[in-house]
Amino acid sequence: MAVKGIPGRAVYLGTFIHSKSLEELEYLHNSAAFVDEKGAIVAIELDCDQKKAEEVLLPKLGWKKGEVTVNVAKPGQFYFPGFIDTHIHASQYPNAGIFGKSTLLDWLNTYTFPMEASLSNLTKANLVYSRVIQRTLSHGTTTASYYATIDVPATNLLADLCLSLGQRAFIGRCCMDTLSPDFYRDVSAASSLADTKATISHIASIDPTYALVSPIITPRFAPSCSSELMHSLGALQKETGLPIQTHISENKNEVKLVAEMFPDHASYTHVYDNHGLLGPKTILAHCVHLTEEEVDLIKLREAKISHCPASNSAITSGTAKVRWLLEKGIEIGLGTDMSGGYSPSILEAVRQASLVSRHVAMEGDEKTKLSMEEVLYLGTRGGAKVIGLEEKIGGFGVGMEWDAQLIGLGSVEENDFNGQLDMGAVDIFGWESWEERVAKWIYNGDDRNTLSVWVKGRLVHERKL
Amino acid sequence: MAVKGIPGRAVYLGTFIHSKSLEELEYLHNSAAFVDEKGAIVAIELDCDQKKAEEVLLPKLGWKKGEVTVNVAKPGQFYFPGFIDTHIHASQYPNAGIFGKSTLLDWLNTYTFPMEASLSNLTKANLVYSRVIQRTLSHGTTTASYYATIDVPATNLLADLCLSLGQRAFIGRCCMDTLSPDFYRDVSAASSLADTKATISHIASIDPTYALVSPIITPRFAPSCSSELMHSLGALQKETGLPIQTHISENKNEVKLVAEMFPDHASYTHVYDNHGLLGPKTILAHCVHLTEEEVDLIKLREAKISHCPASNSAITSGTAKVRWLLEKGIEIGLGTDMSGGYSPSILEAVRQASLVSRHVAMEGDEKTKLSMEEVLYLGTRGGAKVIGLEEKIGGFGVGMEWDAQLIGLGSVEENDFNGQLDMGAVDIFGWESWEERVAKWIYNGDDRNTLSVWVKGRLVHERKL
Repeated sequence: MAVKGIPGRAVYLGTFIHSKSLEELEYLHNSAAFVDEKGAIVAIELDCDQKKAEEVLLPKLGWKKGEVTVNVAKPGQFYFPGFIDTHIHASQYPNAGIFGKSTLLDWLNTYTFPMEASLSNLTKANLVYSRVIQRTLSHGTTTASYYATIDVPATNLLADLCLSLGQRAFIGRCCMDTLSPDFYRDVSAASSLADTKATISHIASIDPTYALVSPIITPRFAPSCSSELMHSLGALQKETGLPIQTHISENKNEVKLVAEMFPDHASYTHVYDNHGLLGPKTILAHCVHLTEEEVDLIKLREAKISHCPASNSAITSGTAKVRWLLEKGIEIGLGTDMSGGYSPSILEAVRQASLVSRHVAMEGDEKTKLSMEEVLYLGTRGGAKVIGLEEKIGGFGVGMEWDAQLIGLGSVEENDFNGQLDMGAVDIFGWESWEERVAKWIYNGDDRNTLSVWVKGRLVHERKL
Repeated sequence: MAVKGIPGRAVYLGTFIHSKSLEELEYLHNSAAFVDEKGAIVAIELDCDQKKAEEVLLPKLGWKKGEVTVNVAKPGQFYFPGFIDTHIHASQYPNAGIFGKSTLLDWLNTYTFPMEASLSNLTKANLVYSRVIQRTLSHGTTTASYYATIDVPATNLLADLCLSLGQRAFIGRCCMDTLSPDFYRDVSAASSLADTKATISHIASIDPTYALVSPIITPRFAPSCSSELMHSLGALQKETGLPIQTHISENKNEVKLVAEMFPDHASYTHVYDNHGLLGPKTILAHCVHLTEEEVDLIKLREAKISHCPASNSAITSGTAKVRWLLEKGIEIGLGTDMSGGYSPSILEAVRQASLVSRHVAMEGDEKTKLSMEEVLYLGTRGGAKVIGLEEKIGGFGVGMEWDAQLIGLGSVEENDFNGQLDMGAVDIFGWESWEERVAKWIYNGDDRNTLSVWVKGRLVHERKL
């Protein structure tokens, strides 16, 4: 096993599972992936054991055996692409699970704004942000698109921590100059823009090519942004080419509020479009109550969608019609939306995406159900497309980067209740097919099954056993 | 800590949390529970530390200090009543999480009947049943109402294992003489009755007063039972006074099928009622698509309901209208319905009951949402009422029995990612109220938070840390 934190040339041997398409998982057994010191996959070889890897493949690559870390997955274990969380509020982590009977607008005022405001205390921000990065890595999240807070130093700290702990991340300073509490709002559109630029400059100074950590322009959502602010952020996007993230059409009262606040715009989606915020690099979280006209506009602009099923159920927002959105040809990924969503785990979002699609099906159309292949696609390749990194991450392929997790499932024999080994809540009896093993992981798996996590070839989390 | 498996006099010190009513959790801090060698709670003392317990209370009880095991919950830990699973198929455990896109009737034929049939192999049955008992105990389930299979020796084995592993259980041999595959059905109503009686006799021989393990009469569901079989099981109930468990109105196609098979009965509920199967000791699982007339009949007969939210979502059965059923005055508990439900954990059922009630609310009525107090009630006191043991279990009180779990939540400080301690996915920062700690447990907790489990005073599970 590689020394934690130090990337180097490595070969990974065993079973690899990843999405071939929305509908299909590919199972590659007895295979090998060769990863260079920059974290790039330089070769994938089928039918390749350790002997062949060392004696045939390494010489072909011009690599010497002693320089290469050899990782061998045990029988039953498999490498899976790291999860991609396309929508998560780092600053809300301490509230995970705390939401009572609230819905969006009272949830913001009761739980969320006070917590976010409190993170201007950098000691607290350091504690919370360190923890959320460690936690999400432990759940297999190799890439996260984070909302921080309005605070520049705390937001910069989140970027610093992602870089040092090795998580691929998009860091968004929340822009919000309207309809927010006095203790937690940007004082003006101008200051909001200036503070956003300050965070962009900081990130450019620590990761100049945005190889691991990138800024993302983050108008919180239309109700908390003045038209002036949104116009200036739209212009900033045009100038910088940076991605944008925001919320849309999560809750019916929110949709009504936007209609009242922006009476001259044809719809919520048009509000963003008319401010230059709707484009191929825009991530729209939720999309629960969109009209067909709005969906068509999103498709036209090639904007992307972050589906947040756990959140939509927990704070009673509604059910996103994922099948419909997929059939419209829009790219969709998964978001935990923690702490609107109660869990920082994309595996939980995968599970909830499956269940929510069944709730949509209960309304009459069986075709809306998502298969396990489809929900895993959304959590990996789908997410990669949403954040514009589909050439690099979300699956295994030559030229892509090694963002991966090693999954191990407990066997009935090994996972002894009287012993020390706790391999989690999944029990493998031994007769299960690979498809059934994956199903068991989806429905009863948790962070105990994520044994090791790598980002860009660097080992960033390892379970102690 | 008590020696595992050997009950004796014990005192438990610390925080106790249990349901005072459907709407209210009671938090008892610095308290003590005194449990005798039979597992009965003989005293509960508020404002009681170890010194007071030993110097004042023990002499009052006439107990000597050296004879009593003293258990002290650490700060932040709490005792909670053991969970009660009012509907679980022990024989389907190996299929947990495996259900594809199926719904009830094809799910039965594809996954369920073949697995159940295979457990006539006693070696396999021993493996599966031992495991499901250990697993459910590890999740805090102190009482389970089990469906086994049609096989008498395997069903008897499940009873033996519950007794030896110390889980309070109701053991049901599945009765099914109709519309089931040739390889898995009772050959006649008469043989089904005789086999049921054989299991009852066996359980009476190993636990004559049904102190821990009791038989439960189990017509699988109306579509798999002939009228003759249901009449004979109704008569058996009258004769023995034993409880009954069955399924009802889970899936729309099932409801249609019953209407076709039993055209002379006014409804699905009337089918059971007309066969003497609907009474105060009847547990009806699911109740998703009942008409108001049926609900009123259930109330009239004082039958009970097992709500199985994870199952209803997973196999797309529908959403049970729990608020409506509660307002009708019917007693309701939770069931995992594993493996229609993917998880053997009642904590997961608690979480899913909360989420499903929000899906019901999305249809328009906010009042249908269940609070965390309500879902925990359903998993403990509600379940106790459903199985007729509300005087004994489901909460803490003098005269009740010590069926309990010790819950510990990870703190950000202690639960070190670099160390060996894995206290689960909950992170307590230290500023949370007790209500917020419980919310965090509900939404991100798992078996790692269930540190110790007792049934009738006996330590039956302990997490290795």
